[in-house]
Amino acid sequence: MQYTEMTKEQLQQERTALMEKYDAFKAKGLNLTMARGVPAPEQLDLSINMLLHCLDGDTRSKSGIDCRSYGVLDGIPEAKELFMEMLGVGADEVIVGGNSSLQMMYDTIIRALQLGVLGSEKPWCKYDKVKFLCPAPGYDRHFAMCEEFGIEMITIEYKEDGPDMDEVERLVSSDETIKGIWCVPMYSNPTGITYSDEVVRRFANLKPAAKDFRIFWDNAYCVHHLTDEHTHLLNIIDECKKAGNPNMVFEFSSTSKISFPGGGLAVICASKENIDFIKKQMAIQIIGYDKLNQLRHAKYFKNFEGIAEHMRHHAAIIRPKFEVVLYKLEQELEPLGIASWTKPKGGYFISFDGMDGTAKRIVALAKEAGVTMTAAGATYPYGKDPRDSNIRIAPTYPSVSELLQAIDLFCICVRLASVEKLLEK
Amino acid sequence: MQYTEMTKEQLQQERTALMEKYDAFKAKGLNLTMARGVPAPEQLDLSINMLLHCLDGDTRSKSGIDCRSYGVLDGIPEAKELFMEMLGVGADEVIVGGNSSLQMMYDTIIRALQLGVLGSEKPWCKYDKVKFLCPAPGYDRHFAMCEEFGIEMITIEYKEDGPDMDEVERLVSSDETIKGIWCVPMYSNPTGITYSDEVVRRFANLKPAAKDFRIFWDNAYCVHHLTDEHTHLLNIIDECKKAGNPNMVFEFSSTSKISFPGGGLAVICASKENIDFIKKQMAIQIIGYDKLNQLRHAKYFKNFEGIAEHMRHHAAIIRPKFEVVLYKLEQELEPLGIASWTKPKGGYFISFDGMDGTAKRIVALAKEAGVTMTAAGATYPYGKDPRDSNIRIAPTYPSVSELLQAIDLFCICVRLASVEKLLEK
Repeated sequence: MQYTEMTKEQLQQERTALMEKYDAFKAKGLNLTMARGVPAPEQLDLSINMLLHCLDGDTRSKSGIDCRSYGVLDGIPEAKELFMEMLGVGADEVIVGGNSSLQMMYDTIIRALQLGVLGSEKPWCKYDKVKFLCPAPGYDRHFAMCEEFGIEMITIEYKEDGPDMDEVERLVSSDETIKGIWCVPMYSNPTGITYSDEVVRRFANLKPAAKDFRIFWDNAYCVHHLTDEHTHLLNIIDECKKAGNPNMVFEFSSTSKISFPGGGLAVICASKENIDFIKKQMAIQIIGYDKLNQLRHAKYFKNFEGIAEHMRHHAAIIRPKFEVVLYKLEQELEPLGIASWTKPKGGYFISFDGMDGTAKRIVALAKEAGVTMTAAGATYPYGKDPRDSNIRIAPTYPSVSELLQAIDLFCICVRLASVEKLLEK
Repeated sequence: MQYTEMTKEQLQQERTALMEKYDAFKAKGLNLTMARGVPAPEQLDLSINMLLHCLDGDTRSKSGIDCRSYGVLDGIPEAKELFMEMLGVGADEVIVGGNSSLQMMYDTIIRALQLGVLGSEKPWCKYDKVKFLCPAPGYDRHFAMCEEFGIEMITIEYKEDGPDMDEVERLVSSDETIKGIWCVPMYSNPTGITYSDEVVRRFANLKPAAKDFRIFWDNAYCVHHLTDEHTHLLNIIDECKKAGNPNMVFEFSSTSKISFPGGGLAVICASKENIDFIKKQMAIQIIGYDKLNQLRHAKYFKNFEGIAEHMRHHAAIIRPKFEVVLYKLEQELEPLGIASWTKPKGGYFISFDGMDGTAKRIVALAKEAGVTMTAAGATYPYGKDPRDSNIRIAPTYPSVSELLQAIDLFCICVRLASVEKLLEK
């Protein structure tokens, strides 16, 4: 029976029954988290040999660079090659950085604010107001950056196949203080959506009012398929070239969820002109990123096929976790008509939508019973979900047995918050 | 015979004789560099075992942190401990970063410009003009940062035991747009000077007009002794506390010239209040630096005594190179009265002063004959040495036999440029 069809008495009875179950969970003293997209230890074990024998006796790149020493700002050739194949770019269109793509994004924006990007008439901080478009639900750390820098965020709704492009086109072409848009175009955080070819082409063909507008294309999950059914994402850098907008996009990625979150490689890709400009700025900041770690990765993965094969092992570990969550949600919540959720083919998240006005309550209930979810609202600019309905579920870190408990509790919290909401009416 | 006592004819004869020698060197087709402070391959070999077996089977910190995964923004405890001992700070006064202290300095300044430091009334970029004091000769990459950001540089002269503190005190206390000063306080780049206790105390007791003034204390060479005769540097963070100015200093260091320039650890130290403030800002940029590399360093060096012992091996390799350069300079140039140079007890450089107006010519002559020196002027703000006399000699990278050739040529270039200059008069 759907909750919306219940009488007040039935809802009250349901609440009582749920409270009992909830209290029973609370008594267990759980301490579990589905809050962040963190690989499980078993996934990190997959790359352990990278740490052991990859640099035995030889710390030179194949081109003769001593990776122990200074220099080579844009990365050693064989590390570049890994990403060139992965992202479909040329050697002069990529810089391999440190262990954090977030850092590369932050550095790109703070430099834009202080110094400007290629084609800027002035540094962004010289405008009274700078704005970014933020498709939401999206990645909280992107939004946190804008907030930190006082960049005004304009929320863009999601359609089936990507952000609402009518709205994106309208805004970008009409306001020269709109300097950027955040995108996670493949297995998006948290929706799991991969942008359709049409959406990518419309991005590439934007006609920004700002000459120094940039698409921040955070392609974090480009090889993070959950099944053999891979979604396909058009190459934005190619499409921008075709559209005569070669400099309009900065693409980011990393091996954080391929090798190690704490010791992987991050990368920025863009047109050669952009990369040359960035390298000039970057040379003032750093002489070179950790080339030993670059060499370690290149020797371990060898080439893109090495990465692709490696990711199949990752999928084998995390696919069952997604299946557990999706099965439980379907079993426990589908019949009640109080929630919907995404069924991603890749990435790290399930995006969950409860009844309006219940997300904060659900997260608080779960927290009180020992299960930490991503904060409600975190998937929206300024942490404010206008409908208070969206919750990001990150199922990868807990074990399957932990996950079963956590998701059972979560479903009880959803039901309880929904009953409460309906009883308010 | 001193050049200044020579007649015009004697000088012309000398020039002819030197040109012959110079041409002979040119014919050798040398390709050597004494341009940058880069460790020799033999020095990097000292740490090679760090890359091989340090992480065998165990990637957890002693406190149980999985160093492969996300998190721990300020660094794992055992990596912090290495630096706590090395720099004399507490666990809450240090952040262990990536592989580049330059990056930490740059990030600190660009955040100050965009967001401000602890106690800022407004971000530095909101002032029409921001100024830094720059003791010179100094480190070109410090000056390049200021130039990139449009920070006006005011040159401060060096005395025997550090910067001209009368001038520093006068300027800092009278101008609230002076927001910082660059210092390499120990075995300074390039002078080799270690600041005296009095100089450090005068720094700690500054009374800046700007509430958010900071000393940028780049303690890059704190364990880089060349002999057993170690100079001693007072702990600036302690002295600032004693003086009631606990938040006035940011100290930086790294293992770039201890382990690997391309894969070491960098660190920022400051008061707990500063560090807490920085961590809040930094958390927006990065989730955590490479903890696997932190663990590698901690396991390899074990403690500060491990580092100190390691540095004795470094000294054994580079001390002879300094000796070669100093011996040759003394032999070839001392009697001629045309130059002076420092005799450092540590660090990576010898600071050389020729006759006024000869440095550019010397470097150009050397370059033409196949020996690259640091660009003349590089040791001064805006690359402009007011007397065109200072040249930084970096003797560590070439082998001793290469160095003998390079310094022989250098001495000929110095003599030639000096003769030319005297003949102009």
